[in-house]
Amino acid sequence: MGKRILIVGGVAGGASCATRLRRLDETARIVLFERGPYVSFANCGLPYSIGGVIEEEKKLFVADAATFRDRFGIDVRVETEVVAIDREARQVEVRHLPTGEMRCEPYDALVLSPGASPVRPPLPGIDLPGIFTLRTIPGSRSIKAWITRHEARRAVIVGAGFIGLEMAENLVRLGLEVTLVEMLDQVMPPLDREMAREVERRLEAHGVKLALGDGVAGFHRTPGHSLSVETTGGRSHEADLVILSIGVRPESALAKAAGLERGERGGIAVDASMRTSDPRIWAVGDAVEVRDRILGGTGLLPLAGPANRQGRVAAESIAGRASRFPGVLGTAACGVFGLEVALTGASEKALRRAGVDDYEVVYLRPGDHADYYPGARPITLKLIFRREGGRLLGAQAIGEAGAVRRIDVIATALAFGGTVFDLEESELCYAPQFGSAKDAVNLAGMTAAAVVRGDMPVVQWHEPEGGATRWVDVRSPDEYRVGHLPGAVNVPLEEVRGRLDELRGLAGAGDLRVYCAVGQRGYLATRILLQHGIAVRNLTGGYFMASLGRS
Amino acid sequence: MGKRILIVGGVAGGASCATRLRRLDETARIVLFERGPYVSFANCGLPYSIGGVIEEEKKLFVADAATFRDRFGIDVRVETEVVAIDREARQVEVRHLPTGEMRCEPYDALVLSPGASPVRPPLPGIDLPGIFTLRTIPGSRSIKAWITRHEARRAVIVGAGFIGLEMAENLVRLGLEVTLVEMLDQVMPPLDREMAREVERRLEAHGVKLALGDGVAGFHRTPGHSLSVETTGGRSHEADLVILSIGVRPESALAKAAGLERGERGGIAVDASMRTSDPRIWAVGDAVEVRDRILGGTGLLPLAGPANRQGRVAAESIAGRASRFPGVLGTAACGVFGLEVALTGASEKALRRAGVDDYEVVYLRPGDHADYYPGARPITLKLIFRREGGRLLGAQAIGEAGAVRRIDVIATALAFGGTVFDLEESELCYAPQFGSAKDAVNLAGMTAAAVVRGDMPVVQWHEPEGGATRWVDVRSPDEYRVGHLPGAVNVPLEEVRGRLDELRGLAGAGDLRVYCAVGQRGYLATRILLQHGIAVRNLTGGYFMASLGRS
Repeated sequence: MGKRILIVGGVAGGASCATRLRRLDETARIVLFERGPYVSFANCGLPYSIGGVIEEEKKLFVADAATFRDRFGIDVRVETEVVAIDREARQVEVRHLPTGEMRCEPYDALVLSPGASPVRPPLPGIDLPGIFTLRTIPGSRSIKAWITRHEARRAVIVGAGFIGLEMAENLVRLGLEVTLVEMLDQVMPPLDREMAREVERRLEAHGVKLALGDGVAGFHRTPGHSLSVETTGGRSHEADLVILSIGVRPESALAKAAGLERGERGGIAVDASMRTSDPRIWAVGDAVEVRDRILGGTGLLPLAGPANRQGRVAAESIAGRASRFPGVLGTAACGVFGLEVALTGASEKALRRAGVDDYEVVYLRPGDHADYYPGARPITLKLIFRREGGRLLGAQAIGEAGAVRRIDVIATALAFGGTVFDLEESELCYAPQFGSAKDAVNLAGMTAAAVVRGDMPVVQWHEPEGGATRWVDVRSPDEYRVGHLPGAVNVPLEEVRGRLDELRGLAGAGDLRVYCAVGQRGYLATRILLQHGIAVRNLTGGYFMASLGRS
Repeated sequence: MGKRILIVGGVAGGASCATRLRRLDETARIVLFERGPYVSFANCGLPYSIGGVIEEEKKLFVADAATFRDRFGIDVRVETEVVAIDREARQVEVRHLPTGEMRCEPYDALVLSPGASPVRPPLPGIDLPGIFTLRTIPGSRSIKAWITRHEARRAVIVGAGFIGLEMAENLVRLGLEVTLVEMLDQVMPPLDREMAREVERRLEAHGVKLALGDGVAGFHRTPGHSLSVETTGGRSHEADLVILSIGVRPESALAKAAGLERGERGGIAVDASMRTSDPRIWAVGDAVEVRDRILGGTGLLPLAGPANRQGRVAAESIAGRASRFPGVLGTAACGVFGLEVALTGASEKALRRAGVDDYEVVYLRPGDHADYYPGARPITLKLIFRREGGRLLGAQAIGEAGAVRRIDVIATALAFGGTVFDLEESELCYAPQFGSAKDAVNLAGMTAAAVVRGDMPVVQWHEPEGGATRWVDVRSPDEYRVGHLPGAVNVPLEEVRGRLDELRGLAGAGDLRVYCAVGQRGYLATRILLQHGIAVRNLTGGYFMASLGRS
């Protein structure tokens, strides 16, 4: 008889672990416990199921219990909750939810994949009807039913993370008026604030009302099955429906009760083979703390991709193979009203939080493909790297096309410990529809490499100005007239060589800064001035980033 | 006074070199000679300009002589041909084409970026009116004018490389009947033949007539300004227009006459800093031979991306910086009637040609994004890697979406010397619209890793069958009924465990092979059988690849 392996939780990590185990060990007796009615469903699709983009709910079912049984010989027990672990006896106590029946199940190996639960803060009125979180298929049905039954017209979404934004888009699609309440002063917290601004503009352009920098104080019922959302800032938003998407919390209570070690953030602590502090117990997915490959230390990253790969690693470890989960970069993406928003590695604020300050940042706005071919659209790209040596730290990209692709490339370079010089030399696909001879990634590498090599000192949009600051706008007079930084002098790039004396005079004050639209002409001007002995810095991302960041 | 630097050729490599030089050396006197009337134009856009996708020809002009002068202080001389190099005197002889005037121009450094010229074989009738090559803007105008003037309805394109296919699509767009004559038995020579089959099906679906495995013997004029293209196979194709896109030849005559070393393929030989055998002369772009990063040795890769980066490296070298061009992977892409066709690294045939045989190949057909989200489309993906250790060698991808993105990721891993295990662990963007929790790249890595680890012995679609071969089709009976391999026994995956004795009997013959639609269920069956001591191999790419490859 083979090993008896119990798996707690049948979505993403748990399901991947179960099927990988079977491929490695035909003799293992594998039992998968799932508290809900379904295993292996696509929870990332729930907002789009609510919005009707995914028309048939059944599309969300990746594999059902019969498939697990017939293809993999896996015994799936749905609506069954594991309520306690007896580590000494190597058994778990399970409750069949429909009947309440309890039983004990022995194990040789136990895998915990309980996921994370949406945060539901203990605010006044939090339990009023019409206030939902989104995690499960029955949960999504409740939201759809509520919208229909109450002919909901106004929704308040609390929390502007990935799920909050996806819900905003999908509720707008259903014709609802949406207000997004977020405690931070930006949407999509993993992004840096100035990048989030572009997402916010897109949300507003589609009619979403943003209430940033404001928290929820409580909820009241109002006449006609409606709700009033009261904020800590003293405002009040009417709603027929409230979605709480404040974040998730690892479901580590079972592990905690069993005395398993946990990390600083409350997740289950695991080693590189996804093993917990008990050598017979593994844990994977949203409930565990994972190593941050950029910043070191561990943290939570509740995403499906890492969960799936962790499930595989745990299976391999249980099957006796040497297998290591390398940790996470934090690659993530979200669609927002036609924008691709994507990021990988450390954000600037995460670096600051971690006390890292020997980094540099460049912004650029290349096209997703050659600008001579129709339909090219800009990608706002932020690249973060070590000042010395140019090692990559992170990147963020936003655009109507091609942003995800560039972040995938940079994430790949990041995983190899790559530098800005590697991006500079990247040999990527180019055809007029698909890229440029100098791809956005090449341009990002070239721009950053110019900083690392000392060819282009940069100034950031948020750096304070002093009495010595002199701005020179190297765009054309027409561009200058439409709008420019306060006090900026217009010296079009083509005139820089002819007006060196004047520029030398401006630099005399000690803090000469140039800018153009996005940074390219500013770079050329910087090269001219530096070579003539005139100290200068180029505003990275140009007028575009200054406008976006300061808005 | 700064160095006097002459650059021969004002497109891609030459233009990049000139502007990079200026950024590094404000004092250099830079002169750019261009034989044609325009510098820095987007020659990759020419087919789309002919087809009307790019409506305004002026879009193709990246920068004109005035921009070079005003922004970069670069002296551009168009319609000026460099006819000889006097290395001893360090000067070149140039001819102003409109006037015929000759003059000598001295240099401290010389950069050759002459490009490559379309092959125009000395066939009977090759100089008849209506037979065109495509390289320049005036050339594209001639083609457009010919089509209009002669109301061309039928075109023959000779050579089915990138330009030939782009021209086919654009001429179809203009309403022409297109016949594509190609000497090889496949379109798009850098692809392996079985992958090219998918491109061929797409071409045929759009009405392009393929005449593969046939060469052109000559051309005749027929009544009414038409042409007849005679082939070596004895066929004859009527045409109102012929496009020759047989390939290009490096323009190394000038370098050869000057006694500069050339490589085996006739390109100019350069070192890693793009310096020729004369320390005062550099060469870049389509005319040079570059190191192949996968196979070693040098070869020709006439593409814009490498040319641009080579131009930068040469400029850096001239400016006294240590800079190295790392060689090429061979990343390339082409759009064909809505298909993205992309590749990187070595093809299987290039490996065989180089005598490499310790490689393995897997095929798969993942979706470009999660299949539960609408609009997911398959990507036919071929991954080539070392049998031992799993080091990546190359990849090819074809699909209506997402193919280019995956090749970009694999190209990035290739550049770092990555393995299939790196792809397995890639942390890429996932949101329902943009990818999958297990991305196509992850799946490719997982599939290949199963081969390297010995978990999944594979059989290729082209491996001959012997008397001992037994095929088992593990798809459903419905799929089997629609079509299956000759002699295959249907044992649906779900029945494998229950029919082990029967399968053991089939394996007794010694060469048991399983297959499914694309390879996934075959893999699961393989794992079951191997663990029960039954030797078996899985047909990689499944019935899909067998059908495609053998077609």
